[in-house]
Order: sequence, then C-alpha cells, then structure tokens
Amino acid sequence: MSLKSGQLFIGIQSTELLGDLITNNFSTSQIVIFTDRTVKRKCLPYLYSVVPILRKAKVIAFEPGEASKNLTTVQDIWKRLIQLGADRKTLVINIGGGVVTDLGGFAAAAYKRGIEFINLPTSLLAQVDASVGGKVGVDFQFYKNEIGFFKQPFATLIDPHFLISLDQRQITNGYAEMLKHGLVLDKNHWNDLIAQPFTDLEGLEKLIQQSVLLKKKIVEKDPFDNGLRKCLNFGHTIGHGIESYFLKQGKSVLHGEAIAAGMYIEAFICLQMGILKKKDFEALENAFELIFDPLPLKVNQVKPIWKLMLGDKKNENGEVKMVGIKNIGNPVLSVPITKQHLAVGIQQYLIRFATL
Amino acid sequence: MSLKSGQLFIGIQSTELLGDLITNNFSTSQIVIFTDRTVKRKCLPYLYSVVPILRKAKVIAFEPGEASKNLTTVQDIWKRLIQLGADRKTLVINIGGGVVTDLGGFAAAAYKRGIEFINLPTSLLAQVDASVGGKVGVDFQFYKNEIGFFKQPFATLIDPHFLISLDQRQITNGYAEMLKHGLVLDKNHWNDLIAQPFTDLEGLEKLIQQSVLLKKKIVEKDPFDNGLRKCLNFGHTIGHGIESYFLKQGKSVLHGEAIAAGMYIEAFICLQMGILKKKDFEALENAFELIFDPLPLKVNQVKPIWKLMLGDKKNENGEVKMVGIKNIGNPVLSVPITKQHLAVGIQQYLIRFATL
Repeated sequence: MSLKSGQLFIGIQSTELLGDLITNNFSTSQIVIFTDRTVKRKCLPYLYSVVPILRKAKVIAFEPGEASKNLTTVQDIWKRLIQLGADRKTLVINIGGGVVTDLGGFAAAAYKRGIEFINLPTSLLAQVDASVGGKVGVDFQFYKNEIGFFKQPFATLIDPHFLISLDQRQITNGYAEMLKHGLVLDKNHWNDLIAQPFTDLEGLEKLIQQSVLLKKKIVEKDPFDNGLRKCLNFGHTIGHGIESYFLKQGKSVLHGEAIAAGMYIEAFICLQMGILKKKDFEALENAFELIFDPLPLKVNQVKPIWKLMLGDKKNENGEVKMVGIKNIGNPVLSVPITKQHLAVGIQQYLIRFATL
Repeated sequence: MSLKSGQLFIGIQSTELLGDLITNNFSTSQIVIFTDRTVKRKCLPYLYSVVPILRKAKVIAFEPGEASKNLTTVQDIWKRLIQLGADRKTLVINIGGGVVTDLGGFAAAAYKRGIEFINLPTSLLAQVDASVGGKVGVDFQFYKNEIGFFKQPFATLIDPHFLISLDQRQITNGYAEMLKHGLVLDKNHWNDLIAQPFTDLEGLEKLIQQSVLLKKKIVEKDPFDNGLRKCLNFGHTIGHGIESYFLKQGKSVLHGEAIAAGMYIEAFICLQMGILKKKDFEALENAFELIFDPLPLKVNQVKPIWKLMLGDKKNENGEVKMVGIKNIGNPVLSVPITKQHLAVGIQQYLIRFATL
C-alpha cells in the first residue's frame, strides 16, 4: 500500500493501518513520536500494542496544554531533532490533541524545509477539527495560531478508540465544532447531533465521520481559506476573542467552550440584525443550554475581548467581520460587527446562561 | 496586468514594473518593506524614485548580515507587523540580499498562515540564487537554512541596476553560484562566464538571465528538492561546512567564497575518485584561481568542518553525500564522502591557494 499525501482514515481501530503505512513508505529506524506527557501515558501503550515497531521510535513529549503551543516549544523540538540526528527521511508521528498536531505539524513542516508527518488526533476536538485542513502553527503574543502555514500531513488516522479515556468536558469540547459543522453546512447533521448527544462509541463514530467529511468537502473547495472555507469561522470571531482573553488571564477554558459561547453570541447578533430567524435561534439556544456549561463571562470583559478581536487574522482593512447564519445549515460569509454588537451579545449571554 | 504567483522579471529597470504590479493587485495602504539598514540607505532612494507610491509604505530594517537570519529577527518582524496592524491583505516587499529575501519570505509566509510578498534581490548572489526556487528560511544553531519551507513569492524582479553600488567582493560572491550553474548544467554558460568575467552592466545582465533561467528550468522539474535539483548542491556540502565554521568563529566569509572553495575541493575529490577528467578539473582550477581570493583554511579545521557537515540537512541515514561533476556541464548526483576525502581536499586547496 503506497498512499498519496494527505490521505484520511476514519474509524474505530484505524490505528491498525499505521504499521503498513510506515513499513511501506518509511525507514522504521527513523521515526520520532511527538506528544504531550498526558497523552504519552494514556495513549502510547495502546499505540505500541497495535503497532509494535513504534516501541523503537524516539519520543518527544512536551507539557500538555495550549500554553505549550509556542515558538519556544517548537525550538526545543528542533534542538531535540538535531540531537537525535533526524534527517529529511525522518517521519514524525503526532499523537494527541490539536495542540500536538498543530505544533508537531509546524515543527515537522519547517524542519530542514519539511519532513513528513502523520497525525493521530486523540481528542474529539482534534478528530473533527484540526484533523482536516492542513493548517499547522503556533500561538504568538496571545494571538491564537498567529504563526503558521498550510501543509498536509502524509496521512491522518482518526480512531475513536482514543476517546474512551476522555472525560465529559473533553467530549463537549469537540462537540461544539461538530455542532458548528451542522449549523453552517448541514441541517441533517445538526439534527443527528442534537437528537442523541454523547451516545456510545459506535454512535459517536458515525457522527464523527459525518462531521469530518462535511469539513473535508469545504476545505477541498477552498484549500487556502480564501472564500467558502470562511464559513467554518462561525463562532470563532468572538469565540477566539473570548478564548484569548481567558488564556491571557491564565483561566481554564477549552476551545470548544469558547467557540460555543461565540456561536451563541454571534447567532444572537444575527437575530438582532434580522439575518437569522427566531425559530432557528431558539433551536440553537435550547440545544446549547443542554450541552454546554456557561462560561464566567462578565460585562467588563467586553473591552479587552474586543481589543483582542481587533488583532484577529481574519480582519481586513481594520474592520472586524464575523460569519453569521441565516438558518440552521446556511452561513452568511461576511457580517461586519462593532464593539456595541459584542456588548449586547455578551449581555444576552449573561441573561440566558448566568452562572450561579 | 494581473499576474499569477511566482512570476519572474529579469532586466535592467524591471523595478519599474512594480508600480503596476502593486496597484493592480494590492491595496497601496497596506505595504510593508523589509530590508536591512545598508540596503535601506543604498537602494531605497532608487526604489522610491521609480515607484513613488512606496514612499507611504512602512519600512522594517534590520541589522545587515547572516547573523540576523535567525528566529529572533523573525519574531521581531512579527511583533512589528502586529504593531502595524498588518492583516492578511498586507503585501511585504523584500528588498536586499539573500538574507533579506529568505528571512523576509519566511516571516511573510508564516504570518497569519501566509501573506503575499514580492522579492527585489539587490545583490548578485541573491539575483542568481535565492531569487528562484521558493525557499524561505532561517539559520538555526549554526546550521544554515535549517528551518524553513517552500513558498513562492507573488513576484520576483531582478534588476541589475542595483548591482551598480556593489563592490568587487560582492560581485565575486554571486559569480560563484553562476559558475556553479555552468559547471553542473551548461558548458556554454561556463564558457561565457569565464571568457569575460566582470564585464559592464549590460554584459552582466545577459549572464544573469542565462544563469537564472538555467536554475529555473531545474527547479520547475523538481520543485521540492527531491531529485534533479540536488545537482545545484555542487560545492555546497563542503562549502556549507566551511561557511558554518567561519560563521561560528565570527570570521567574515561570504557564501559564494565558501562555495567556491567547496566546489574546488569537491571537484578535486571527484578527480581523485576518477569521476572527473583531469582536463576539466584543470579548467576549473585555472578559472577559480583568477576569479577568487583564497580563504584562510587550515588543516586543523578539518575536524570541526566535518562535524558541521554531519548535521547537513541533505544527509540521509547518517551518510555524508555530495554532488560531483563528471565534466563541465554534467553532475553526478550522489557521491558518498568521508572525513578523509575532506582532509585530502583541504590539503590540495592549501597547496594550490595557500595565503601568503
């Protein structure tokens, strides 16, 4: 089996394909595994049992969490690769959440002008989001993914088996992006997602397949994020602002949690602007209330969050734009918003989801 | 005039095309010029006189020299771009030598997942070498271009007008790479180059066109440096080792000077191995003696230079390989060499070119 770059496998136990993929395309003496220390403990034993040749691979494990996704970690990885004598034929296997695959992908894609890497996303969020699209990168100066570029992995294997070890908060984190795919692309997917959230592994496997293939279709039509693909930014203009704000404050917030709040607020702004129908807003509101716990947002955070939004890389000519929805399954690509919209949206969030 | 990415213009006063290129493709309010402080003084007045709209552009000028080509400078550039509010529509114009275009290209290509850049190489070396191939990158831990990737500029304008201000040493520096193109690709180009080195600007313009188009042909056949393009590494396995060694010692050596020494030593190794004919080696030796001043190489530098060569990114499976030539105009892609070859080659260099 010889595979072209960027191929995607989705399914329980798809990890088993990795052995063949390696022996047919790479030298087994030249493999480096990138991961974080938590994933190393949780997932490497399974990986080794399924792909025994990987026991010989060198492991580079960094501190888990978004705070590691920076140029300091990347430089540590490059130093380590040099120490290990990694050359252009070395294969990197990124196993972990989105931080691992984005960071490890960046490190591999810029080392000696690019060495091959294979991604094994282990969190639900990474499986349905970072797994598709070829984006590699790191945060910089509190801006998320400010530095990076596009590079397809040699292959991506999405194995829901890894989700067994995740707690509910981590599952919800990925569910936010899946719901987004339904909201901007496919009402049927949305309906499937809200009918039975958090079902068993087989049920989740089907929903993951739906969600990933929806994203893949869009990305293939717009690989460099110049048009249609922008629809995937629904919830992200405000969501990234919220996430960056909490990151800067050292407070714990997961990407999906911030994006869920962002989607709610952006949908409310659409409702206020007359873009989104009330019925559809209420469907979103009811589903989100069941699925997500509220974030500790406060009115006095409007100013710093807006300031962070002004540095968003999606802005053009100094104007802040978001993606809206006109109904469930259909996006509006470019909606200019102001600080006032954000303020009113956050107020509405507090009215509906105030933490006790 | 709307141009596809990666287009190339070569000729005296090709800089004049830049105005149209900008007004037809970019917002003139969003331009940043990257350069070094020397080029800023020497070349920006001409640039402004030819393209007056650039007077409004922001300028980021860093310390000249290879020592700036690192991740610290890149991070300073990114911070500055953020301060300037540069967004995804911002155009970067890199004007300067290879350090400026490699470094500025890297900074632009990884900022917010890539913004467009146009290269105006002003040194002969940058005009005939870095100008073609889409390589962007920086040095890391004394390894040249260790970090980087492939990204085509929006356009490259090669204007020999900029060479007027260069001293003889800078011209010789570029001439080394032109001679290399002749040695590995085209005997006619070699003959033209040695017939009348360092002619007037019009003569140089023709030689530059020949040299750039030879390189372009090879790069288009092998854009990601996986096969044929390796022939352009003639002189570079040992040359990079010598260059890195002097860089590490804080001694002044230009890339072309190191590569000329590398070509001589690698050609001598080919002669010793019976790969290269004596007649062709002597032709190379005689031409080089006229064109290049000797480097202060010493026998006790064999060990540290070899150590640096072991980290070369072209190595595979720990073996050091160089590109050889079998005659003038024809390369041999993969010749394994040992420390002993390097030692004998450096001894020969000292016999022939010993500094007085």
